[in-house]
Amino acid sequence: MASQQRAVVLVSGGLDSATTLAIARQAGYNCYALSFDYGQRHRYELQAARAVVSQLGAVAHQFIRVDMSAIGGSALTDQRIEVPTAPSTGIPVTYVPARNTVFLSLALGWAEVLAAPTIFIGVNALDYSGYPDCRPEYIHAFERMANLATKAGTEGLRMRVLAPLIHLRKAEIIQRGRDLGVDYGLTVSCYNLDVTGRACGLCDACGLRREGFRVARIDDPTRYVPKA
Amino acid sequence: MASQQRAVVLVSGGLDSATTLAIARQAGYNCYALSFDYGQRHRYELQAARAVVSQLGAVAHQFIRVDMSAIGGSALTDQRIEVPTAPSTGIPVTYVPARNTVFLSLALGWAEVLAAPTIFIGVNALDYSGYPDCRPEYIHAFERMANLATKAGTEGLRMRVLAPLIHLRKAEIIQRGRDLGVDYGLTVSCYNLDVTGRACGLCDACGLRREGFRVARIDDPTRYVPKA
Repeated sequence: MASQQRAVVLVSGGLDSATTLAIARQAGYNCYALSFDYGQRHRYELQAARAVVSQLGAVAHQFIRVDMSAIGGSALTDQRIEVPTAPSTGIPVTYVPARNTVFLSLALGWAEVLAAPTIFIGVNALDYSGYPDCRPEYIHAFERMANLATKAGTEGLRMRVLAPLIHLRKAEIIQRGRDLGVDYGLTVSCYNLDVTGRACGLCDACGLRREGFRVARIDDPTRYVPKA
Repeated sequence: MASQQRAVVLVSGGLDSATTLAIARQAGYNCYALSFDYGQRHRYELQAARAVVSQLGAVAHQFIRVDMSAIGGSALTDQRIEVPTAPSTGIPVTYVPARNTVFLSLALGWAEVLAAPTIFIGVNALDYSGYPDCRPEYIHAFERMANLATKAGTEGLRMRVLAPLIHLRKAEIIQRGRDLGVDYGLTVSCYNLDVTGRACGLCDACGLRREGFRVARIDDPTRYVPKA
C-alpha cells in the first residue's frame, strides 16, 4: 500500500537523516527530500545534503531558506556563541530554539501541496537526552497539531510524522544504514567543521558519531582534523 | 502580574493583527512584534506592518525571511494562481499551506530566546470558516506541542498562545481596535493590492473588511481602487 505513497523526508546532510531517507526509500515511498538553509554555521551541510540525496535517490529535492539566525539563541546559528569542545550536560548550547518545529512545519506545508500524507524525520534516542524536540511525545503532539492545521487533515487525509530512528542507538542506526547502502563518507555531523569540511573530532556531535562507529564495529569514513 | 511579561506578537500589516497588538499593549505586555517576509504577493504588507508597529509601539520589531513560495500551492505565494474576485466556498485558494504553523513555530523560537511565555496571534472567528489553522482546537494543539518542543516548556516555563480575536466578528474587532486607538488607515487586508497599495474591493478579504466597517458603523479608511 505504501509503495505508491509520497513522503516528505527531512535531509540535513547528517548521518541520521541519510539513514532515514534510506529507510523511507526501502519501505517503497516516493521520497521528496527537503533541506533547509537556515543560517547554520556551515554551508558545507547543504552540499552534504545534496550528495546524500544524489546517492540514495529522491523524486525531488527542495531547499527552503528560513533565516533562523534572526532568532539567535544557539551556537549553531549565532556566531558569537562558541560550540563547546567537551561533552555538555543538560540541554546544550547547540540546541536551536524550535528548530524541529520550524522544519516540520515547512515539511507539513510541502506535504500538503504534494498530497503526501507522511513526513519522515531522523530524530533519535540519543538526541532525546538533550533536545526536547527529539522526544516521542513531542513528535506525537506535532502530528496531532498537524492534522488540525491543514486542509488535508481537515478533509480526511491523515498526516503522519514518522521517526524511524527514535528508539535506536547511534551504532544501531549506522548498522541499519550500512545494510541499506548509505555512504556515510558523504554525511557530516560535526558542529565545528573546518573550511575544507573536516570534522573537529571534539564536539558532542563528533563524539556521538565516533562512538557509534566504534560500537558498530564499522570503519568510520569521517575526515577528521589530525590531532595536534 | 502580566504587566512585566514579554510577549511575541505576530504582526502582518492587516487589520486583525494590528488590533491584537493593541490588545496586548493594553494588557500591559512588553511586546516584541514579529513579521514575516514569506514570499507574499505584496511587499506592501511589510510596509504596513512597519507602520502599524510604529503607531502602536513595541519593544522591538523583528522581520524573518522564510521562503514559503518554495512550497507553492497558494494564490498568495504562487503568482501563477489567481486570487478570486468573488466570494468562495470551502477552503479558499488563498489558504497558504501550514502558514500559521510556520509563523507560530518561528514565534516560538523567538519567544524561547526572549524568555517570553506568551505569543499573540490575530486569528478570528470569521477566518474559522475557511482556514483550518484559525480554529480554537488548532491553537490549543499548537500550544500543547509548543510546551513539549522547547527547552523553556521542558524547564517549567509554560508557553501560551493567545488569540484574543478568535471568537469576535469583524465588526467587533474593528470596534475594539477603534477604542484602543488603532489607525486602520495604516493596515492592508486586500489580496489584490495595486502598485500604489490601493485595495481591489472585490476579493474575500476586502469583502470581509468592508462589511466589518459597515456593521460597526465606523468610517472605512481603506483606499479602494475606484469602481470602473
